[in-house]
Amino acid sequence: MANLKSLAEHLGLSQATVSRALNNYSTVNQETRAKVLEAAKKLNYRPNSSARRLATGRADAIGIVLPHQDDLLVDPHFADFLAALTKKLATYDNDVVLTATDTPQTYQRFAEIGKVDGFVISAPKAHDERIAVLSKLNFPFIVHGRCETDLPYGFFDIDNEGAFYDATKLLLQLGHTRIGLINGAADLMFAKQRLDGYNRAHKEFGIKPALELIHHDHMTEEYGYRHAQALLDLDDRPTAFLCSSTLVTVGAQRRIREMGLEIGKDISIITHDDGLSSLKTENFSVALTVTRAPIRDAGTQIAKMVVDLVRGTPIEQLQKVVPVDLIVRTSTSAPRRSRS
Amino acid sequence: MANLKSLAEHLGLSQATVSRALNNYSTVNQETRAKVLEAAKKLNYRPNSSARRLATGRADAIGIVLPHQDDLLVDPHFADFLAALTKKLATYDNDVVLTATDTPQTYQRFAEIGKVDGFVISAPKAHDERIAVLSKLNFPFIVHGRCETDLPYGFFDIDNEGAFYDATKLLLQLGHTRIGLINGAADLMFAKQRLDGYNRAHKEFGIKPALELIHHDHMTEEYGYRHAQALLDLDDRPTAFLCSSTLVTVGAQRRIREMGLEIGKDISIITHDDGLSSLKTENFSVALTVTRAPIRDAGTQIAKMVVDLVRGTPIEQLQKVVPVDLIVRTSTSAPRRSRS
Repeated sequence: MANLKSLAEHLGLSQATVSRALNNYSTVNQETRAKVLEAAKKLNYRPNSSARRLATGRADAIGIVLPHQDDLLVDPHFADFLAALTKKLATYDNDVVLTATDTPQTYQRFAEIGKVDGFVISAPKAHDERIAVLSKLNFPFIVHGRCETDLPYGFFDIDNEGAFYDATKLLLQLGHTRIGLINGAADLMFAKQRLDGYNRAHKEFGIKPALELIHHDHMTEEYGYRHAQALLDLDDRPTAFLCSSTLVTVGAQRRIREMGLEIGKDISIITHDDGLSSLKTENFSVALTVTRAPIRDAGTQIAKMVVDLVRGTPIEQLQKVVPVDLIVRTSTSAPRRSRS
Repeated sequence: MANLKSLAEHLGLSQATVSRALNNYSTVNQETRAKVLEAAKKLNYRPNSSARRLATGRADAIGIVLPHQDDLLVDPHFADFLAALTKKLATYDNDVVLTATDTPQTYQRFAEIGKVDGFVISAPKAHDERIAVLSKLNFPFIVHGRCETDLPYGFFDIDNEGAFYDATKLLLQLGHTRIGLINGAADLMFAKQRLDGYNRAHKEFGIKPALELIHHDHMTEEYGYRHAQALLDLDDRPTAFLCSSTLVTVGAQRRIREMGLEIGKDISIITHDDGLSSLKTENFSVALTVTRAPIRDAGTQIAKMVVDLVRGTPIEQLQKVVPVDLIVRTSTSAPRRSRS
């Protein structure tokens, strides 16, 4: 099998001329071009990706930059998202390029040196400097989620606000008036959206939730335990929890059990369920009521959207928010009249 | 900021000549080279990565191919591994290129077109065709784990056999004679190694474990539950479980509790603990006895090893097996004399 170098040597031409001939540049005359194509076929030439990229200007790759300080990738949700994204991009002959960094300047460097054709931005903050950086570079990107900005950008998001509005409303309708919220980190947009939904439902019921009921943190089992503990130690403890992830709920459940309380009786729980393949909410000892949106769907959709964007689809056609199902199981019921 | 094209235009030279001058090819005379370097400096030239790669022959990227049929990435262990690998590779200015495929031919294609400088092979099977494919291509790769092959290759592995030998021996010494093994998929090498350790310890104690005690499957919460159920439904049910992952143990624990049994009293448990940041074994309601090897360490070590390999370190110096700690907590005790 020939590469550019051996093909050029065989023909007695420069690599640059052969490359231009193969890529149909007008500066190469037709006779030379025909000779090059014939030899390429005969010698079974396959273009080196760098050579091909230099000619086409395309990397056939989508970049994801992991923030050094966070543990984005370690989040099992992100693993499911990345799996779906990678598989869908492969159907377009595109790869995912992962790198880690501390600064938004990496986006600039990546874009300039042509390593990728576009980016997927994960876990956006309400005010996310990456949007401004990439917009200024005029480099294609799709955000998984949304931000607070006036800049136009493509995004795929679930209706986080609506989901937590629905969930909170269900709990309020059941008669709960003290609902603990164990949410993601406060600067993340989805956490802000979910808090907005929680607050809107309360407002409709004329209830102002106490600040002590609202917790923001990383979404691990350990923090789920700790925040459930803090909530259950309150003098007037909540009768229901609203949790932002399944792992948080595993931790909360651990604390509830330690205290001898029963889920779905002493404490109602609704959790957001990203449809993790390794941990299913329907399998919990008390099957969990959930707001459900499989994160793999987001990976699949965003793969298509970012390829479309690179190929020239206008941003306005690449802005999508999907509704979230509220699935009621046995972890929710009316609060007990008197508590021990 | 100039690119190769604008720099060449400014100088009135071909892009190929400018590229060769910048990369110090002997075919370019010193005078031309000096002129090119001066202009590059003045115009703030930054090489396009494809141009640089074409010149250096290096991609500064390491490839990982996800099998389409498996859910490798969805495994939270793999997420932790990938996070550590990506972060360490970034310190060498290397990225991770992820792609998904069904066939080992992808490795061949990737190697030929120069997208990556080397591969990391995850989740090897005992007989893994990827080793033969990459060896034949003479393309650098490091295996996370080991295989059964006569071909030389670089690897980083934990002592899975030793870990499960130690764990089984502890249970046997405590007096358990019926130990259920909930292991990973049977064709994966680590599962085979762990089974070997389980069998070796039994052999030393003159006990032949019944086949009904040995289970292999995907390592999800759901399968942990199902296999624990099957084991606890045996007429002569085991008094101890040895589990291959923390999530499996979450599922097993769910079934044990449903049956009203107590961990550390009715059923002893030892689990392998990859040190997942999102799920900690010391936080289980009954703190778990574990064989512990943080999978992030493997990611960090393999990043260095694969870069060393690409840079020319001999394979023989890139073969590493690290021991595994056995950490005893409260989930293990002697079996009860009589069982209900």
